[in-house]
Amino acid sequence: MTGLFQTAVDAAQPTLCLPKHLPLRPKGRTIVIGAGKASAAMARVVEQHWDGPLSGLVVTRYDHAVPCEQIEIVEAAHPVPDAAGAAAAWRILETVQGLTADDLVLCLISGGGSALMTLPADGLTLDDKQAVNRALLRSGANITEMNCVRKHLSAVKGGRLAIAAAPARVVTLSISDVPGDDPAVIASGPTVADATTYEDAREILVRYGVKAPPAVEACLRAAADETPKPGDPRLDRCETVLIATPQASLEAAAEKARQAGITPIILGDAIEGESRDVGYVHAAIARQVARHGQPGQAPAVLLSGGETTVTMQGKGRGGRNGEFALAMAIALDGDSGIHAIACDTDGIDGSEDNAGAYVSPDTLQRALKTGLNPRGHLADNDAYGFFEPIGDLVKTGPTLTNVNDFRAVLIL
Amino acid sequence: MTGLFQTAVDAAQPTLCLPKHLPLRPKGRTIVIGAGKASAAMARVVEQHWDGPLSGLVVTRYDHAVPCEQIEIVEAAHPVPDAAGAAAAWRILETVQGLTADDLVLCLISGGGSALMTLPADGLTLDDKQAVNRALLRSGANITEMNCVRKHLSAVKGGRLAIAAAPARVVTLSISDVPGDDPAVIASGPTVADATTYEDAREILVRYGVKAPPAVEACLRAAADETPKPGDPRLDRCETVLIATPQASLEAAAEKARQAGITPIILGDAIEGESRDVGYVHAAIARQVARHGQPGQAPAVLLSGGETTVTMQGKGRGGRNGEFALAMAIALDGDSGIHAIACDTDGIDGSEDNAGAYVSPDTLQRALKTGLNPRGHLADNDAYGFFEPIGDLVKTGPTLTNVNDFRAVLIL
Repeated sequence: MTGLFQTAVDAAQPTLCLPKHLPLRPKGRTIVIGAGKASAAMARVVEQHWDGPLSGLVVTRYDHAVPCEQIEIVEAAHPVPDAAGAAAAWRILETVQGLTADDLVLCLISGGGSALMTLPADGLTLDDKQAVNRALLRSGANITEMNCVRKHLSAVKGGRLAIAAAPARVVTLSISDVPGDDPAVIASGPTVADATTYEDAREILVRYGVKAPPAVEACLRAAADETPKPGDPRLDRCETVLIATPQASLEAAAEKARQAGITPIILGDAIEGESRDVGYVHAAIARQVARHGQPGQAPAVLLSGGETTVTMQGKGRGGRNGEFALAMAIALDGDSGIHAIACDTDGIDGSEDNAGAYVSPDTLQRALKTGLNPRGHLADNDAYGFFEPIGDLVKTGPTLTNVNDFRAVLIL
Repeated sequence: MTGLFQTAVDAAQPTLCLPKHLPLRPKGRTIVIGAGKASAAMARVVEQHWDGPLSGLVVTRYDHAVPCEQIEIVEAAHPVPDAAGAAAAWRILETVQGLTADDLVLCLISGGGSALMTLPADGLTLDDKQAVNRALLRSGANITEMNCVRKHLSAVKGGRLAIAAAPARVVTLSISDVPGDDPAVIASGPTVADATTYEDAREILVRYGVKAPPAVEACLRAAADETPKPGDPRLDRCETVLIATPQASLEAAAEKARQAGITPIILGDAIEGESRDVGYVHAAIARQVARHGQPGQAPAVLLSGGETTVTMQGKGRGGRNGEFALAMAIALDGDSGIHAIACDTDGIDGSEDNAGAYVSPDTLQRALKTGLNPRGHLADNDAYGFFEPIGDLVKTGPTLTNVNDFRAVLIL
């Protein structure tokens, strides 16, 4: 199971997928900017393969920096932004000021960039944005919805960074971690037109009952400086290339399974929903394979990607992959011959130190022997506290890439 | 889409699936008893095919009676039991008293039988049982868990009816509406050994925070008369035959799709989870078919059965199939070429007059034109109020059978 996960992560590593997408050297200067969990790793690959001088600044998550020689790498906080991210965003905006039409901006974008390159719109403080972010992360809103709000509270997101870089050519190399792989959504699309509006953002806060600070409410009501919409001529010289996607990683894992004589069944690269319920559905499909040979004959492996949601009701530790795995373990109830792994491809599931967790036929039995109450841990959103004592956490450390969640359910 | 649903329902019709499973005529008397939404229809088929005298009593849901000549049919309330169901249960227990080893009891069981044949254990009133039932239906507990509690508050369920019928031979013909098709779970298994205990029942009430009347708490604490456990010799002359199952109905729909040149993809016959999240997962898989030809090439139809759950948070109308359909419509967001139907095979989705609802690519658009707010209706658990004004409810009336939910998602 770890092998399949590793294959999915490898397929999204910049060393493998970035070089072939580098544009030609421009007449003028080449400036590298970027933000995301994979963006420092991407910057290093650019340095290794670029023919000519480079400069620039890229922001990544704490512990995700890699040494670069020409491009400055800074670290900041994720998922809740901090002052380092704000300073980086401000400096990135400065870096692209005063460029000419002969210059090239290489923008290296990956998941997490939304929180890492954060600069509050006029009239807002970082505290305001942090408060909204925290509330959004707990509200049950999906990533698309969270990003719509973020774009309208930001001085860089939703295409605003590209406008700052005009008239230079802007080539964005993106690693997608979002359903549908829409570049406007990945890291809140700092170089991509934004079809959403201030009104949409206000509606999302209402829909999820998010209590925002007064300054945030005022900013969204004032609607002073709308993001550039599709067709905006200021974005005519911007292009985006997806260099890694959840689907490509699922395909790589599928190929690896096929080589081992196991039938891959890819269910979807963009599965959303409450983590535990998505777990129940995966468990039911796995049982269908075992009992009825549908939708494929065992030995088979269900593969899926996307980003599930945990609506916090308890006070436990653990991310959405752990919660998925715990729900699966409960639903499978020791069903023999079914194993599973659920991990965040970035190596960090939520805010703990694990990428995710394993489920094996004896998971429940071992847990019960250890005195754990599976349903109690699930009710408390405490997957970490469930899997940690039985040694079934997956720990990889940061992988320096991010194509969202990866789930594999093996039916023998 | 209606054609596929009709095919699934037809496959579970007693006229088609019952006659071949009738046992041989006994030396002594033949008594027909039973409970469930399909049980009157089953009784009529028994009368039509039985060679010899018959008598007995079968209870079904209001409006589900069909005229029989030798077997008395009574109607009662579902899903919340009423006095008619209690009277029927008492009379059924009477009917099987004093039989000999030469006699045969034909027990016709189908979904809904748990609520319809209800007789409170000593010391409990019907009001007590109704209160617990209502609380359980709203709690998020699944059908297996609800039935565990019901068995331990009942004088007939969990094998107690079979013990009353001993030493007669008891042949139970069952139409399954439960995940895993376990006869001990269908209608709370009145003629089947019960592996669950009073302690399990107490734990379920705690787990879901169900507030039970003091008499119920006292009954579960007293644990006076445990249900017969597997291996109990008093059940040696009991056998159960599954004459219709969710899987058989899915297979029938799959065959019909195949004949129309559409690839059937059966995801599972026992899919559980919160209705809306199960809807989101089905939507994501449908999109995977459309975009990537996985897990099968379009034109394809995803088929699934099982029973989802609605955790009530709003005050709207509608059942779990409507809620599934509404969530799918929202997730698909007008995706062209994807159509869906979600219905209860018994013809009644929850407590309204519809079997379920359709989703088509223009569902959202038509709803918005009508002034409906899709997410608002979903937040209010009001799928009925959403689909009714746009004419997208499926209405069949009672089908007189029940193999749980049926969902089909067509990708063209």
